[in-house]
Amino acid sequence: MTTMEAHDPATTPDGGVTDAQRAEIAEARAQTAQTRRATVPALEEVLYEPLPVLDHGFVRVVDYMGDDAAIVQAARVSYGRGTKRQRDDQGLINYLMRNWHTSPFEMCEIKLHVKLPIFVARQWIRHRTANVNEYSARYSIMDNEFYIPRSEHIAAQSSVNRQGRGDTLTEAEARRVQELLREDAERSYAHYDELLNETPEGDQRDPAYPGIARELARMNLSLNFYTQWYWKTDLHNLMHFLRLRADAHAQYEIRAYADVMTDILERWTPMAHRAFVDYRLGGAQISAKGMEAVRRLLRNEPVNAKAVGMSPSEWRELMALIGRGTTGGAADTATPAE
Amino acid sequence: MTTMEAHDPATTPDGGVTDAQRAEIAEARAQTAQTRRATVPALEEVLYEPLPVLDHGFVRVVDYMGDDAAIVQAARVSYGRGTKRQRDDQGLINYLMRNWHTSPFEMCEIKLHVKLPIFVARQWIRHRTANVNEYSARYSIMDNEFYIPRSEHIAAQSSVNRQGRGDTLTEAEARRVQELLREDAERSYAHYDELLNETPEGDQRDPAYPGIARELARMNLSLNFYTQWYWKTDLHNLMHFLRLRADAHAQYEIRAYADVMTDILERWTPMAHRAFVDYRLGGAQISAKGMEAVRRLLRNEPVNAKAVGMSPSEWRELMALIGRGTTGGAADTATPAE
Amino acid sequence: MTTMEAHDPATTPDGGVTDAQRAEIAEARAQTAQTRRATVPALEEVLYEPLPVLDHGFVRVVDYMGDDAAIVQAARVSYGRGTKRQRDDQGLINYLMRNWHTSPFEMCEIKLHVKLPIFVARQWIRHRTANVNEYSARYSIMDNEFYIPRSEHIAAQSSVNRQGRGDTLTEAEARRVQELLREDAERSYAHYDELLNETPEGDQRDPAYPGIARELARMNLSLNFYTQWYWKTDLHNLMHFLRLRADAHAQYEIRAYADVMTDILERWTPMAHRAFVDYRLGGAQISAKGMEAVRRLLRNEPVNAKAVGMSPSEWRELMALIGRGTTGGAADTATPAE
Amino acid sequence: MTTMEAHDPATTPDGGVTDAQRAEIAEARAQTAQTRRATVPALEEVLYEPLPVLDHGFVRVVDYMGDDAAIVQAARVSYGRGTKRQRDDQGLINYLMRNWHTSPFEMCEIKLHVKLPIFVARQWIRHRTANVNEYSARYSIMDNEFYIPRSEHIAAQSSVNRQGRGDTLTEAEARRVQELLREDAERSYAHYDELLNETPEGDQRDPAYPGIARELARMNLSLNFYTQWYWKTDLHNLMHFLRLRADAHAQYEIRAYADVMTDILERWTPMAHRAFVDYRLGGAQISAKGMEAVRRLLRNEPVNAKAVGMSPSEWRELMALIGRGTTGGAADTATPAE
Repeated sequence: MTTMEAHDPATTPDGGVTDAQRAEIAEARAQTAQTRRATVPALEEVLYEPLPVLDHGFVRVVDYMGDDAAIVQAARVSYGRGTKRQRDDQGLINYLMRNWHTSPFEMCEIKLHVKLPIFVARQWIRHRTANVNEYSARYSIMDNEFYIPRSEHIAAQSSVNRQGRGDTLTEAEARRVQELLREDAERSYAHYDELLNETPEGDQRDPAYPGIARELARMNLSLNFYTQWYWKTDLHNLMHFLRLRADAHAQYEIRAYADVMTDILERWTPMAHRAFVDYRLGGAQISAKGMEAVRRLLRNEPVNAKAVGMSPSEWRELMALIGRGTTGGAADTATPAE
Repeated sequence: MTTMEAHDPATTPDGGVTDAQRAEIAEARAQTAQTRRATVPALEEVLYEPLPVLDHGFVRVVDYMGDDAAIVQAARVSYGRGTKRQRDDQGLINYLMRNWHTSPFEMCEIKLHVKLPIFVARQWIRHRTANVNEYSARYSIMDNEFYIPRSEHIAAQSSVNRQGRGDTLTEAEARRVQELLREDAERSYAHYDELLNETPEGDQRDPAYPGIARELARMNLSLNFYTQWYWKTDLHNLMHFLRLRADAHAQYEIRAYADVMTDILERWTPMAHRAFVDYRLGGAQISAKGMEAVRRLLRNEPVNAKAVGMSPSEWRELMALIGRGTTGGAADTATPAE
Repeated sequence: MTTMEAHDPATTPDGGVTDAQRAEIAEARAQTAQTRRATVPALEEVLYEPLPVLDHGFVRVVDYMGDDAAIVQAARVSYGRGTKRQRDDQGLINYLMRNWHTSPFEMCEIKLHVKLPIFVARQWIRHRTANVNEYSARYSIMDNEFYIPRSEHIAAQSSVNRQGRGDTLTEAEARRVQELLREDAERSYAHYDELLNETPEGDQRDPAYPGIARELARMNLSLNFYTQWYWKTDLHNLMHFLRLRADAHAQYEIRAYADVMTDILERWTPMAHRAFVDYRLGGAQISAKGMEAVRRLLRNEPVNAKAVGMSPSEWRELMALIGRGTTGGAADTATPAE
Repeated sequence: MTTMEAHDPATTPDGGVTDAQRAEIAEARAQTAQTRRATVPALEEVLYEPLPVLDHGFVRVVDYMGDDAAIVQAARVSYGRGTKRQRDDQGLINYLMRNWHTSPFEMCEIKLHVKLPIFVARQWIRHRTANVNEYSARYSIMDNEFYIPRSEHIAAQSSVNRQGRGDTLTEAEARRVQELLREDAERSYAHYDELLNETPEGDQRDPAYPGIARELARMNLSLNFYTQWYWKTDLHNLMHFLRLRADAHAQYEIRAYADVMTDILERWTPMAHRAFVDYRLGGAQISAKGMEAVRRLLRNEPVNAKAVGMSPSEWRELMALIGRGTTGGAADTATPAE
């Protein structure tokens, strides 16, 4: 169990792993075997290791199936492994990504063990094309671990939401927020513990009265408590998850997980990762109206939002995307470059 | 907004609906149209109506597609509606249910609006074959509504978990549990509200300091707060949900929803409901070893768990299922009826 | 059953519907009922009607759930119907489409009865997020109906595949292809019929020998025979299907179905259709490298494929997209507009 | 390419693999690597090997993820591997299977390369919870390989369908069926080849006229031609597939695949296989009415179909299941054992 001190958001993330768990992980890592399967040394390096996220969370790769060559192998329905020429493999993977041929990417699979705050788990689970086994608060006792955001994130997220008002939280105000969250979480856990009235071995602690069921007591915990699950998905759906959750519009806390998972993606299937970055993460979806505007600009014709039927906010997004500030008085007009 | 009093678990469930919402619902109910589609008068009767569950929750049928005849129509890939002979339809539906021909049941669809505590929502969402739109605590302010279990449920769930110890909560102890849950929920909401520092119109309330982002503040709320969602699924998956969640082993709170939904099923597709009750809810899955035991008993041969390779707990389950108490000294032996 | 003449690809498509089936459809259309559900008059107009596709195929809308307002209603998790202001609804639907908020579109559902050649069915079924009930060739006798492509499509598809060679099929050659396909299909059906040795009532026709099982005999039929199924999907997945299958790269035969279904989409949810046309059908996905090229061109800087790391084929696609022919000698260089 | 002789159903199955393909497979099998992942030696033994099915089909295990211990590990959301005590693992796996806790089984994944007749592929694909990459007849030329059933299967399937008529096909009649199927398949391939007018290298063969597109020509092939695909699914869905397709009611041809896959299951996860055989394959689902009948019989009370509201066919199924012939005059009455 992490101690009070460990909750201090200023401390280094600890991955929320106890010594006993570390020993289990070390033992799992020590066992190796010969296999004929596609194997990825760069991913084997971090296999089972908890990669820390937020103050007490982690992502651990527990298993994987396939590699870049397996994408090629599936696309070709081949008898052997993928091609041996690396350039061809990258070219085919780019082609598949560009043209939304998603099924070959579904032929690789990854299994993660994730420890995450409940409110993050609730966003995460919306991605339905995955297999999940969550730690059961119905049958097991929850650990006393909860998430407290760092002061810079409290301030940053606050200012994003109140754009233009010019006021962000001071350091002292952010500290006050942390205190309040921590006090409430500690009290809610203490009462959870009191309601259970159980020793760690599952016996009744205070003989004077029976505890209540674990499935009921858990409702007193707040949404920043950590839960954990095994989560398994295929490469296509992993990238779909990352496209939405590694995005600047995603909430910081789930993005922190997505960032670690993007690094895992790079270790696992570097070619698919490269294509993903080019066509998805860094790419852009432009509407028919937007394409019309781009074409006119490239022909050196003046154009504005109204002319192509775009709303002001769409127009601003487009201008940002193509590296045009909106000029002068008319905020929704773009003139050809001088 | 529900008042303090409304939280009293002794009061009648109120469905947690405000007057303004009731007016909206009434208006929606008042509008009717002509349609050529399959229509189910018994379900239309309750369309849009909030059917109360727990202290402030509800289930509302918002839309539906298909009826019993549509199952038959799909099974036959027919040009018209289902058959006109009701007896044939029931017979075919029974046959489909018995032989796990699930696809014709997938041809009917229902859409519900559900208000439910977050810890129930977390169990519910494990059923992935459904479409969900949840009220967003990232962008909207949560209501001050939380679930407090009735004292009889606190006691009942407690005693189930501690079978054999002979001690259940007294009424006074259950009251103490309710008080503790309520106090924590109220405090967590008050702090949530303070962290937001927003008026209902979304303006800054206390000008002295900025509030924090809604997406962050929500983490202070506990798992008994109510959320709501639109949930849409097909008839097959609805029945799968009900088989697991209307079961005696399901947690009381989700079972309360499943019970109301079973009534909805009966209104919607009475024939499918009848087959569901016979083959799924009331039926039994018996293992190969269990069938061997049953056959021996029916041949008047003595048999015990060991003889067919069953574990003691499996044996007890089987005996309960076939209406046999385990007799005399040997708890895992069944003798033929005298 | 359609006669030999009906197979002539020069005849008007007949929807492959017998008189008895037409009567069934007319009867289904004649029945109407009052409903409180969202109802779409423009879609009710064609409800149950077979909309002809290819020589003997069709698409029939058999049922639907929801309308444009239901998308809005789900996005807002509202108590009433969607908003009353049409402009707001379109704006919200555009926003959802632009930002890949797909779940509100999943709240509308449509059920189609489709008659289609088996080779088209095999492409179609790759879209897994749908419910399907297919006419069973295991238990039922297949009809003697098969697809023969029109001569212009034989020629067109031929020339596409052999771009640059400059030779397309002559009318006479296309006629020969049709003859050959027809002869083989007719023979394969005649032998299928012989293998079954059954009267339409299911009795043995030639008493001299038993027929073989339907499930076996069907293997002699070719892939252009028509099958039929009930197919049900939600609005989001329908649009995903249409994006891929109404595309110029899709095979003509499945595109013919997608085109009819796009018309159905327009009748059903005109606002979602409008957003779909702007952001999906007519929109473009541009890679990070492609965006870099566009930005440079807009700054009046010369740029070529190599400079941004694009392959020649990617570059050609991009130039076509932004309305630039590649100029002069260097096929992979674009110069700013003059 | 297999020769004419290879099509003789009397010859040993050849797995339909060419020498070049065998060499590719041997090369893939020769490469091994060290891994920290869960590894199953019994499955590694057959990895990549084509296991023959029908006359020219096969199933090859191409990759896998997880083992029995991984089921346990996921059920416990543990940090290390599964338990070390084998007895506990089997007990937990039995418990999970018995109580339909399906998610831990979803944590294991397998990828197969399957060569199968198109009409089998059409049944197979109805199982939607899997990933598929099929050999493309749109872009590639199909091989000249088709399925001809053995004479004993033609006879057996015929007699099953015509129960009671007492006439099965003679050996000569079955031979005639084979001839007819073979002649039609050969002609359809010859015409396919003529329509393509391509050399194996993709050049125009007869310069006198252009061929037609591959995507069009394929429609002339019959449903017994072999196709192939990569098919990937999780352990839960694999067992669901096997429960339905290894069943006596499944068509012989798909059952032949399911049987080989059941052997693979046994190699891969012997404990899950044991539980599957006991609770699914060998188990029985009995309706509420059926259980009522069983209970009455065990209490030595006479009971008949009508008394418990079962249809005659349901009653017969139940009596067969519990090892009771229906006695004497009243076919739908069971008397207690004497």
